[in-house]
Order: sequence, then C-alpha cells, then structure tokens
Amino acid sequence: MAVYTHVNAEEIENFIADYNIGEVLSFKGIAEGVENSNYLLRTTKTQYILTLYEKRVDENDLPFFLSLMEHLAAKGINCATPIPDNQGRILKNLCGRPAALIGFLDGLSVMRPDVEQCMQLGTAMAQMHVAAGDFILRRENNLSLDGWISLAEKCEDRADECSLGLSDIIENELEYHKENWPHRLPKGIIHADLFPDNVFFLDGRLSGLIDYYFACFDILSYDIAISMNSWCFEKDGSFNVTKASKLIAGYSNVRKLSAEEIEALPILCRGASLRFLLTRLYDWLNRVEGALVKTKDPLEYLRMLKFHQTVKSAGEYGVDIKK
Amino acid sequence: MAVYTHVNAEEIENFIADYNIGEVLSFKGIAEGVENSNYLLRTTKTQYILTLYEKRVDENDLPFFLSLMEHLAAKGINCATPIPDNQGRILKNLCGRPAALIGFLDGLSVMRPDVEQCMQLGTAMAQMHVAAGDFILRRENNLSLDGWISLAEKCEDRADECSLGLSDIIENELEYHKENWPHRLPKGIIHADLFPDNVFFLDGRLSGLIDYYFACFDILSYDIAISMNSWCFEKDGSFNVTKASKLIAGYSNVRKLSAEEIEALPILCRGASLRFLLTRLYDWLNRVEGALVKTKDPLEYLRMLKFHQTVKSAGEYGVDIKK
Repeated sequence: MAVYTHVNAEEIENFIADYNIGEVLSFKGIAEGVENSNYLLRTTKTQYILTLYEKRVDENDLPFFLSLMEHLAAKGINCATPIPDNQGRILKNLCGRPAALIGFLDGLSVMRPDVEQCMQLGTAMAQMHVAAGDFILRRENNLSLDGWISLAEKCEDRADECSLGLSDIIENELEYHKENWPHRLPKGIIHADLFPDNVFFLDGRLSGLIDYYFACFDILSYDIAISMNSWCFEKDGSFNVTKASKLIAGYSNVRKLSAEEIEALPILCRGASLRFLLTRLYDWLNRVEGALVKTKDPLEYLRMLKFHQTVKSAGEYGVDIKK
Repeated sequence: MAVYTHVNAEEIENFIADYNIGEVLSFKGIAEGVENSNYLLRTTKTQYILTLYEKRVDENDLPFFLSLMEHLAAKGINCATPIPDNQGRILKNLCGRPAALIGFLDGLSVMRPDVEQCMQLGTAMAQMHVAAGDFILRRENNLSLDGWISLAEKCEDRADECSLGLSDIIENELEYHKENWPHRLPKGIIHADLFPDNVFFLDGRLSGLIDYYFACFDILSYDIAISMNSWCFEKDGSFNVTKASKLIAGYSNVRKLSAEEIEALPILCRGASLRFLLTRLYDWLNRVEGALVKTKDPLEYLRMLKFHQTVKSAGEYGVDIKK
C-alpha cells in the first residue's frame, strides 16, 4: 500500500510520448500493490495503470508475467492487459525501474466474498487455467516445496518469537510434505495469489483478475487451495464449507477435476497454508520499523493449517466426491 | 501519502446511493494527502475524489473549508468542488469519519516550477483572494504568531536534538515577530498551504488549486510569502529571484499590492519560514517509528529563515518597489 518510486509530471509526460494514448489529464499514485509502485494515469483517451516494478520482483520474470497477461487477454480472459508503445514494446524503463503501462480494469474487490462470488471465482480461475493451456513460456514456482524448505531454514531459529512451538510445527509439516506432496497432479499456469483483492466485481459479476506477479507453472488444483484459504474462511476463523463447495463447483463447471485432484485437496490446502505462513513469518521476522507496508499476520495461516490438518477427506470441503 | 481508513466495496456502494452520480466503476485509494484518506471514485458519469477527514483536521472547521470551496467554485475559480448529495448535504459520514465527495480536478502538480508557472501561481492566488473577498465565514489562523509561540513551547526543550542551537534561534526569531509582526496589513481568506503539490497545471496552464484544509482569515500577502518559500528556492537551497519577482508580478496584475504590503515581505517570509520550521520540528520530534507518513525535513525551513534574515528590503526579492 505505497508508492515507492516517485514519478514527477515531467517524467510521466516524457514517458507517454512513446505511446499513442493521448494527452495526460491526471496522474496519481495509488495505495495498491505491496510489491510495486502503481499510478493511475488518465489521458484524453482513457485510463491506465502505470506499474514500476520494485526490488521484490525479479526483472527476469517480467517478460513471463507481461506475456501471460497479453496471452490471457487475447483469449478473452478479463485481465489487465499491457499496452505496447509505438514500437511495440511492453517492458519499459522509468525512473531507473522496469515499468509497464497496463490497461485499466473496471470493478471493485470485495472484502468478504459471498457464496455466489466464490462460485464465480472458481469459474474464472478454471477459464484462466484453460486459456493458459497453450502458453509457451514457463516460470517455476519458487514458493513451492523447495521454496518452503529454504524459507523455513531462514526462519527456524526465530519462529518461536512469533508463536511458541511454531518452529516444530513448521518442521513437522515440512516433513509431511516432503513425503506426500502430490507432484504428479496435472500442472499448468496458475495465478498463485488469487486473494479477494486481486479479483474485481461489477454489477454482481466478476469483471476481472489482476496482479499476475506470482503466476507460475505448478499444480493446477493448488490454485484452488490458495483461494479456498483466502475466500472461504470467515473473519472469526471458521471455515465456510458452502463457499468452498461452490468455489470448487464453479471451477468444475469449466474444467473437470479428476478423482486424484479432488483427493489431494486437503494436502494442497495444507501446503497453501504453509506457503503463506512462511512468507508472512519471514516478513514478520524481518519487518523494518518505519516501513510503509504493514506486515500481515502469520498466525492467520497457522490457524488455517491446523484446520486442514484435521481434515480427513475432501468430502469435508463440501466436494461431491462421486463427481 | 496514505490511506488511513479503509472503505470497502459494500460501504462505497451504500455511500453513493445518496448521490445522483451514476454507478461505481472503480474505487481506489490514492497516495495523496498527508492529513486525510483520499479515494479516486469513477462512476458511469465521471470521476470524483472521496475524502475522509482524519484526526488532524478539526471537524468544526469542515463547514468553513467546504463552503469556501463551493464559494470559490461558484465565482469561477478552478478548485475542487464539493458535490451535494440528493438532500443537498455536502458534509457526510463514512466509516465513522466525516467525509465529502469532491469534484475531480484534471492536471498535474509540478515538482520544480519554472518562472512562467510561478507567475501563473501569483495570478491564480490573487484571483482566489479577490473571489473570497465576500465570503462570510471566518476561521482564524491557528498557525500564526500565537500558534508559533505555543508550538515553540512544546519544542524548545528538545529542539537542539534536531540541530544544535535551534532552540535559541527559534526564541530570538519569536521575539522579533512579537515586536514586529505586521498585524495591520490587509486581511482576507488565504489558502495558507499553496505548495507546488497543491497546484495543478494542464497543457502549460494552471488548471486548479486544491487542498483548502489550512485556509483561514489572515494577512493576504502572507500567502505570497508561504509560496515564495515553497516555489522560489532551488533544490540546492539558492533563492531564485526571477521566480519570486514573477510570482509577485503575477499577483500584482490582479490585486495591486500596497507599499506597506511590499515592504513587509521580508518579515512575512521570515514568519512563513518559522511556521513551517516549527510544525515540521514538532512532527519530527514526535515522529512515530513505523508511521505511514515520512516526516519532512525541518532544517529546509531553517535555511530559508536564515536567508530571509539577511534580506534588508523587498527589493532583494526582485519586486519593483516603485510600483
């Protein structure tokens, strides 16, 4: 929630001279995006998002992210689309940072998605998975099992500062995944961060998916698990099984899940919990006093992990196993 | 540069149901405004700024600020204009905070104003002073001499933490103003915070003045002094006399300055320097680690103060004294 790199009036005027997008009418930094600086640019033609990629994004990954957005848009998926300049370039440089101009997507993200919105999310996620089926670039998920192991090593000595016993819980959970992670499930391009703030709704309909900066090649149904965590738990920590079943049903209407994918949901949900527990724990242990961005609570994901550890079969998520 | 109060999708939909402004298309927190939370709202009709007033703004002052903006807009001044709801109310409540919907003003603020922009600022400031001439509400300037005395008392014990000898400098400067402050100069409504980021330009023309939340009834030419500090010093601390002379000339083309007003410019500039030195010093001494807003450098205004202390007459600001 911050603007890290300040772009002044002269710099933005020079920047957009390379594009055929009209004259600048207004230009404002927006309080969105934890990783990057984002500006809302309005011109005599329409409005755009200008993103400057900050240090946490690997520059080498940018062609993958931007090409994916282009690919999905070309397939009719409602997603923010990079705008090429007059020479057809998408990835540019501004104020010493990599930068891209992105089409503006209308809509509002909801804080507390309802059952119907969970269903729409499932459908849109599956449509995205299918549309990305013939995307040729690859990016490994550096926040899957190997990444968790490496994060856990960085955190283990101090994890108990966050919660007593956390270090042991993480170690045991990692051992479980080393032995049981379902590497052979169908893979493809996943969004990997489909939290409610990355999904827009307009007039009750899902209007778009944004923020592809964690997208990668990984187990497709792992994307479902990530969203089950961020969409189906209530504020009091309770799990809303109706929301989960609708999310999965919305997904299955577009892309049928195999019996193996359904059976693996509990371990995928545990992995998704561990992934966000670890990244949040790392940020929490390395938080800087005075930083612009508030660190998120790691323990929210510890609670989810504990819930999923008790789940014996995907049926408890409201999935119709016979499907 | 922050959003303090989070407004969610449901809350904004409910809020704008009271207005005849179309349907919400997008709603984004913007990284603007140190004192308040600001959102950019786009609807099927046009775009707006939604401001939630945070603790640093006295709720009792809001009718003054909002009425002034209405008054100026009605007189043809390009300023952000409050939008009434269907019952004609301007000051509303949202998420437990006072809130107002404000018309969106096109334009970009410049970081380093040039000579021509300084001249346009002078003209626009004088037009605003004249347009506010028959505005009937009053708000005293709580950041004039009495306010400085009170701030200095709060800071004196620790001022030297910021710069050795600062406490003595402030005390001596205050003594000077207690004896010499030109209380009898012509008064009226002043903006009192016309920094470059509160002035928009579009296609080379000044397109509007924003952020009236320090406006008050005070010496008109004190507004010139405040802007001379924020517009006419270069980044290296040098004073650009051409910019100052053009700012004053632009002003004088609309509202003629009396000999007394011109002669008083050096003390007004000293007072304006002391005012921002003191408020920045207070914020600096009371800065909170982890706060979203970076404290501004008090010493920038100490350097300006020292410059103005050496000025013997307004002629050194490039003013044509014979005028």
